[in-house]
Amino acid sequence: MSRTVKDFGIVCGVLPQGTKNAVTDVPGVRVGSCTLREGDINTGVTAVLPHSGNIFRRKVVAASHVINGFGKSTGLVQIDELGTIETPILLTNTLSVGTCATALIREAISQNPDIGRTTSTVNPVVGECNDGPLNDIQALAVTEEHAEMALRSAHDGPVDQGSVGAGTGMTCFGFKGGIGSSSRRIELDGSEHHLGALVLTNFGNAGDLVLPDGRRPSPEMADSLSRARENGSIIIVLATDVPLDHRQLNRVAKRAGAGLARLGSFWGHGSGDIAIAFTTGNTVEHDSTNAVANMRILNENRIDLLFRAAAEATQEAVLNSMLSAEDFVGRDGATRVSLASILCRSE
Amino acid sequence: MSRTVKDFGIVCGVLPQGTKNAVTDVPGVRVGSCTLREGDINTGVTAVLPHSGNIFRRKVVAASHVINGFGKSTGLVQIDELGTIETPILLTNTLSVGTCATALIREAISQNPDIGRTTSTVNPVVGECNDGPLNDIQALAVTEEHAEMALRSAHDGPVDQGSVGAGTGMTCFGFKGGIGSSSRRIELDGSEHHLGALVLTNFGNAGDLVLPDGRRPSPEMADSLSRARENGSIIIVLATDVPLDHRQLNRVAKRAGAGLARLGSFWGHGSGDIAIAFTTGNTVEHDSTNAVANMRILNENRIDLLFRAAAEATQEAVLNSMLSAEDFVGRDGATRVSLASILCRSE
Amino acid sequence: MSRTVKDFGIVCGVLPQGTKNAVTDVPGVRVGSCTLREGDINTGVTAVLPHSGNIFRRKVVAASHVINGFGKSTGLVQIDELGTIETPILLTNTLSVGTCATALIREAISQNPDIGRTTSTVNPVVGECNDGPLNDIQALAVTEEHAEMALRSAHDGPVDQGSVGAGTGMTCFGFKGGIGSSSRRIELDGSEHHLGALVLTNFGNAGDLVLPDGRRPSPEMADSLSRARENGSIIIVLATDVPLDHRQLNRVAKRAGAGLARLGSFWGHGSGDIAIAFTTGNTVEHDSTNAVANMRILNENRIDLLFRAAAEATQEAVLNSMLSAEDFVGRDGATRVSLASILCRSE
Amino acid sequence: MSRTVKDFGIVCGVLPQGTKNAVTDVPGVRVGSCTLREGDINTGVTAVLPHSGNIFRRKVVAASHVINGFGKSTGLVQIDELGTIETPILLTNTLSVGTCATALIREAISQNPDIGRTTSTVNPVVGECNDGPLNDIQALAVTEEHAEMALRSAHDGPVDQGSVGAGTGMTCFGFKGGIGSSSRRIELDGSEHHLGALVLTNFGNAGDLVLPDGRRPSPEMADSLSRARENGSIIIVLATDVPLDHRQLNRVAKRAGAGLARLGSFWGHGSGDIAIAFTTGNTVEHDSTNAVANMRILNENRIDLLFRAAAEATQEAVLNSMLSAEDFVGRDGATRVSLASILCRSE
Repeated sequence: MSRTVKDFGIVCGVLPQGTKNAVTDVPGVRVGSCTLREGDINTGVTAVLPHSGNIFRRKVVAASHVINGFGKSTGLVQIDELGTIETPILLTNTLSVGTCATALIREAISQNPDIGRTTSTVNPVVGECNDGPLNDIQALAVTEEHAEMALRSAHDGPVDQGSVGAGTGMTCFGFKGGIGSSSRRIELDGSEHHLGALVLTNFGNAGDLVLPDGRRPSPEMADSLSRARENGSIIIVLATDVPLDHRQLNRVAKRAGAGLARLGSFWGHGSGDIAIAFTTGNTVEHDSTNAVANMRILNENRIDLLFRAAAEATQEAVLNSMLSAEDFVGRDGATRVSLASILCRSE
Repeated sequence: MSRTVKDFGIVCGVLPQGTKNAVTDVPGVRVGSCTLREGDINTGVTAVLPHSGNIFRRKVVAASHVINGFGKSTGLVQIDELGTIETPILLTNTLSVGTCATALIREAISQNPDIGRTTSTVNPVVGECNDGPLNDIQALAVTEEHAEMALRSAHDGPVDQGSVGAGTGMTCFGFKGGIGSSSRRIELDGSEHHLGALVLTNFGNAGDLVLPDGRRPSPEMADSLSRARENGSIIIVLATDVPLDHRQLNRVAKRAGAGLARLGSFWGHGSGDIAIAFTTGNTVEHDSTNAVANMRILNENRIDLLFRAAAEATQEAVLNSMLSAEDFVGRDGATRVSLASILCRSE
Repeated sequence: MSRTVKDFGIVCGVLPQGTKNAVTDVPGVRVGSCTLREGDINTGVTAVLPHSGNIFRRKVVAASHVINGFGKSTGLVQIDELGTIETPILLTNTLSVGTCATALIREAISQNPDIGRTTSTVNPVVGECNDGPLNDIQALAVTEEHAEMALRSAHDGPVDQGSVGAGTGMTCFGFKGGIGSSSRRIELDGSEHHLGALVLTNFGNAGDLVLPDGRRPSPEMADSLSRARENGSIIIVLATDVPLDHRQLNRVAKRAGAGLARLGSFWGHGSGDIAIAFTTGNTVEHDSTNAVANMRILNENRIDLLFRAAAEATQEAVLNSMLSAEDFVGRDGATRVSLASILCRSE
Repeated sequence: MSRTVKDFGIVCGVLPQGTKNAVTDVPGVRVGSCTLREGDINTGVTAVLPHSGNIFRRKVVAASHVINGFGKSTGLVQIDELGTIETPILLTNTLSVGTCATALIREAISQNPDIGRTTSTVNPVVGECNDGPLNDIQALAVTEEHAEMALRSAHDGPVDQGSVGAGTGMTCFGFKGGIGSSSRRIELDGSEHHLGALVLTNFGNAGDLVLPDGRRPSPEMADSLSRARENGSIIIVLATDVPLDHRQLNRVAKRAGAGLARLGSFWGHGSGDIAIAFTTGNTVEHDSTNAVANMRILNENRIDLLFRAAAEATQEAVLNSMLSAEDFVGRDGATRVSLASILCRSE
C-alpha cells in the first residue's frame, strides 16, 4: 500500500483532513485512471468527474488560474468566460491533450446527441504535464480508448496515488512525481464541508524541496540551484461542496500557488502551473428557461478558511504524490528515486 | 432645455428607452453634480449614487472593464477582487482624482465611524478625463467641498447633460463633450427592468465620428485621420436592476466598448476608456454574519439582452453628451462647437 | 472570381489597402487551406504560417485577446505567458481542435526531433468556430491529413476567400460566412509596412449587420432582434511586420473588436470571439544562448496607426468573407444566401 | 542600529546578497521617508525613486501584479497598459493615497510645466496599507508636505527599516511590521546586476509565520488559526537593472507572492497584496520622435534567476522589516512586540 505524509509524521498546516484525505471526500466527486507502462512508454490518463450525472446538462460552477503559463492545457478560455465546467477533467501528457479532448467530445455527444445540432458544442477540459524525460512522449501512445478507460474506471473511494494514470512518468523536485491527493474538512455554521485537491506533479528543481518542518531532502543539490532551471509543470484540481461563485473560486484557485511556494517552488519559467477549481455547491442547468436562477454564495468574510484549505491541501497532495511513488525506471533507463526512500533512509 | 438624439431623429439600436432615458431610470440611482466655470477654470465633479442608503454598509455588486488603460481612475483593483462598490462613484478631471477620493473617504467615515477603527477601511471609486485643453487643469481647482456638493445635489430625476459637472471642460470627436445619459427598458419573464448609462465623454478624433445612419459630421477632417492621435478618455458608468453577479457584470461592462466603436472610435492609445457596471439587484451586507448568502443571477442565455442594451445605451449617451452641450469657449479662448449646431446647420 | 468590398464600392476607413488586400501582404506570411465538401460534410482547415522557416526554432512575437470567451481555441495560455507563437496557426470547426493540435505537434516533431526529448514540448495554436448548422460536425470529419494538406498548400499569393477551408460551413449575420482577408499599408519614417487580417467568420444576428455607409442589408429582421441570441464565433488573425512587443500586440489585437462592433456586433454571449496577433518584425531564437537580446519596438505615440489599421482591416475582412461566398446549401438542405446576392439585387 | 536576518543567522535561499542588501543596490535607485509619530499618530510616507533624472521625461519600464486586491493603491491601470512608471512610487496609509497622489502630481507639474497643457497628464503611483490598529488613520494626518519631505530625503545609501516612513504603524504576523529591504546579486554573461525589494509589511496572522529553518515564532497561536482572518496588506516594490520588458517584469512581480507564501502567508482575503516591478535597464523617452526604439530584453531561458531572486529578496525583506522594528506602543496604548525580541529571548 502506498505511503502518504501521515506515515512520515509530516503535517501541512492546521486544518483537519477529510476521511479519505482525498478529493473524493467532496461528495459526488470521482477519480479514475488508465496507466500505460510498457518499455519506453510510461504515461497515462487521469479523470476527475465532478458528479455522477450528465455534466453537460448540469454544469458545475468553476474557475481557473494560471500560476505560470508555459503550458498547453485546453478549455480554460470558456471556464473563465462562463464560470462553468461541462465535461469531466482529464489529465495526461503534453502531446496527448488533443486526443483526450476529442475523447471528451465523443463522450459528450454520445450522452447528448443534440450537441452541435440543436444546442451548443461542448468545451473539453484537459490538463497536462511533460513526461518526456521518463516516457517516449513522441510516440503519442495515449488513444481515445485510454481516455475512455480512465473515465469508466472512476470511483469515489480512496485515490490511487504516485505513478498511476497521467502521473506514471512524472518527476517532481528531482524525485518520482505523479498523482497526489489530499483534503481538508471545513465547518460552516455547523454544517460540514470539504475542499479536496488532486495534483499531477512534474515540477520543481532537485534541491529546492523543503518539508514543512524545514528539512531539505536534497542538501547536496543546493550549490547548483542558482544555475538550475525549473521545468515540468503541475496541474492542480480543487473541488469543494462549499457554495461559491466563479469569482470566489478564482480566488481559491490562486491559493494553490501558495501551497507550491511553501514547498520551495518559485513557479519556474519552464513550468505550466495551472489550477482548476470547481464547486458542487452551485450548478447551472443547461436547459433552464427561467430568467433568473438562485445561487448560494459564501460570506466573503469566511473565505480565508477556503484559502487556507486550498494552500494546505495542495502542499500535502504534492508531498503525497511523491511519497506514494516507488523508485522508478523509465525511458532509456532513466531513474527517479522515491522521496519515501530518501526519508526512510534518513530516519 | 438641452437637446438629445430624439430631437434629431437619431436612433441607436432597437431596444426601447426608459421614461427618463437616463441612468436614473434604474430605481434608486441618483446623479448629482458641481460645475466650476469661471475664467480659465472649466471643470467640476459628477456623482453617481447606486442607492439612497449607506453604500458602505450595503454594497452593490459591481465590475469594471478597462477598454484602454491610459487613465488614472482609482478603486478598480478592489472592485475586481471583491466584486462590489462601497462608495458613490465620482467623476472629475484627471488631476483631481486624489482630492475626490479623499472626499469620499471623509464622507464614508462620517457615516461609518468604525471605518479604520473596528472595521476595514473604504475603497473610493473615482473616474476621470483630462479637460486640460479647455480647463486650467494645473490649478487643481476642485476641492473636497466641490465633491461634497456634487454628492449632496444628487437626485433621481432627469440627468443634466452636456457641459455640467465633470463634463464642463470636455471634448468629444472634436465637438463639445461632457456628461450624457441614456437607458434601455428590459423585460424578463414579465417583469420590467432597466439598464442605464452615464458617460463622461472626452475621446475621439474630429473626423472619426459616424452617426447610426452613416452620416459623418466632420467630412473635412477625413484626410488628416491617418495622422491623427486619439487622446482624451471616456468613463462609462452602467447601472441596472437586473440581478447579475460580478462575472456577468464584467461581461456587460465590456459591451460599452462596442457602443464607442459604433461611433467610429478605435479606443485610441491616449485614451483612458473605462467602464464601471453595478447592479442594484444584488447587494452585499457589510455586517452579515451568516456563512452563506443567497444571490439571484440572470440565466446566461438571456444575457445578450443586457449586452445589446449596454452597447446601445452607451452609444446614445455619448451622442446625448454632445447634443446637449452648447458651443463653448474655454481656457485661453479655445472653442468647441456643439454637434447640435452642426446637425441643425446641415438640416 | 470572388468579389470583395471593392466590387460594391464599400470603403472601410481611411487607410490604404496593401497590393493583395490580404494578410499575405505582410512579407513571409502564407495561407493554405483544405476544403471538405461532400454531402452533409461542409467543413475544413485553414492554415496561417508566419514565415517560411522553422517556426519552432524562430518563434514570432505574438499576443492574443479574448473578446468573448465562449470558445474552444487552444494554445492561448502559452502565447499570453511567453509572448510567442511557435507553430503555424490552424483554424477549423469546434470539434476538430484536438485533431488539428495533434497534427501540428506531429509536424513540429518531424521538423524538430529534439522536441520532448532534449528540448521543451511544443504549443500548437488552433482557433475554431462551430459550423454545426451547415456541417455534420458530429462526424468529426477533419483528420490529421487534412490539416497537413492545409499546411502544405500554403502560399503567399492572394487569399482564397468565402466558403473555403475552415470557412466552408460558416454563417455570418445570417448570410454565408467563411474566410475573409484584408490589409492596410502603413508608413513609418519613410519605410513601408503592412498589417493584415485573416478572419474565420461565424458570428452575428441576421438583422444586426450594418454597412459602413449605414445601410442595413436585412431590414426585415430588425423587429426580432430584441429576442435574438448571437451564436457562432469569429477568429481574427492579425499579422504585421511593424516591430512590436507582446504588450503592444495585445493592444493591437483588442482593436479587432472595434472592427466587429462597427458591423453591428455586440460580441454576443454565444460567440467565441478571439483575436491572435503576431509580428514578423521581432523573432525569438529557440536556441539562443546570449543572456540579452535586442528587440525593436514601435514608439507608442505612433500606435494609433496600428489600432486604426486593425479595426479597419478586421471590418473589411469580415465583409470580404461574406461577399466572396456564393449562395450555399449545407447539411439537411439548410441554405445561406450570399451577402453579394442581396447587395446586387438591391442595386 | 537596526538588526536584520544576518544578525539572527537566518538565510533566505541561495543567491548572494548585494552590498547594502537593499533596493538601493540597484544603481540609481533612491529611497526616502517621512515619519509621523506623535500621540495617536503613527504613520508616514516612504518614497522609491527609480533614477535621479526627470522620471516623467525618462520613464522606466514597469509592471504590476495584484496578488490579492483588497487594496486601494492607485496608478496600476496605466502601468499595466503602457508598461511604464513616470513618477516616484510613494507608500503610505490607506486613507492618504489621494493626498500623496496629488503631491506627486504637483511635483511632476513643477518639473514639467507642459503637463496637462501641451503634453499628456501624469500617472501618480501610490501604494498603501491600513495602519489603523496603531495609528489614528481617521485623522488623515499625512499632508502633501510630508510626501514632499519623503521625496526630498531620498538617497541611495542603506535603507532605513522597521518603524519608519509608511511603515511606522504597521503590523506583520502579529509582530511589529514596517519597511524592509533586501537584494540579490545576479551575474549574466560576466556582468553584474541586482534585483532589490522594498516592502511595506502589514499582513499575516499571528501564528502563521514560519522561518526558513521551519521554526514558528508564535506556537501558542496555532490553535486559533482556523478561525483567524488575515487582514492588513503588503506592498512589494521590486527594482532591477537587468534589461526586461513589461511582460517579463510582470512575470518577475508575480514571484513576490512566492516569497510571502514561504513565510506562511496564504494571501488572506482582507489583504491588499500588490507587487510593482521596474527596471532601470530599459527606459522610454517621453519626447522621442523616432518611429522605432531599441530595447534590450533578457533571454527568457535565464529568467528563473530573476524569479528566484524576487522570491528570496521579498521573503528576506519582510523578515528584515520585522527584525529591524523595535517593540512599539501605538494608538490607545496598543502594543506590538518585535520579532527580534522574541528570537533573542528564545536563544
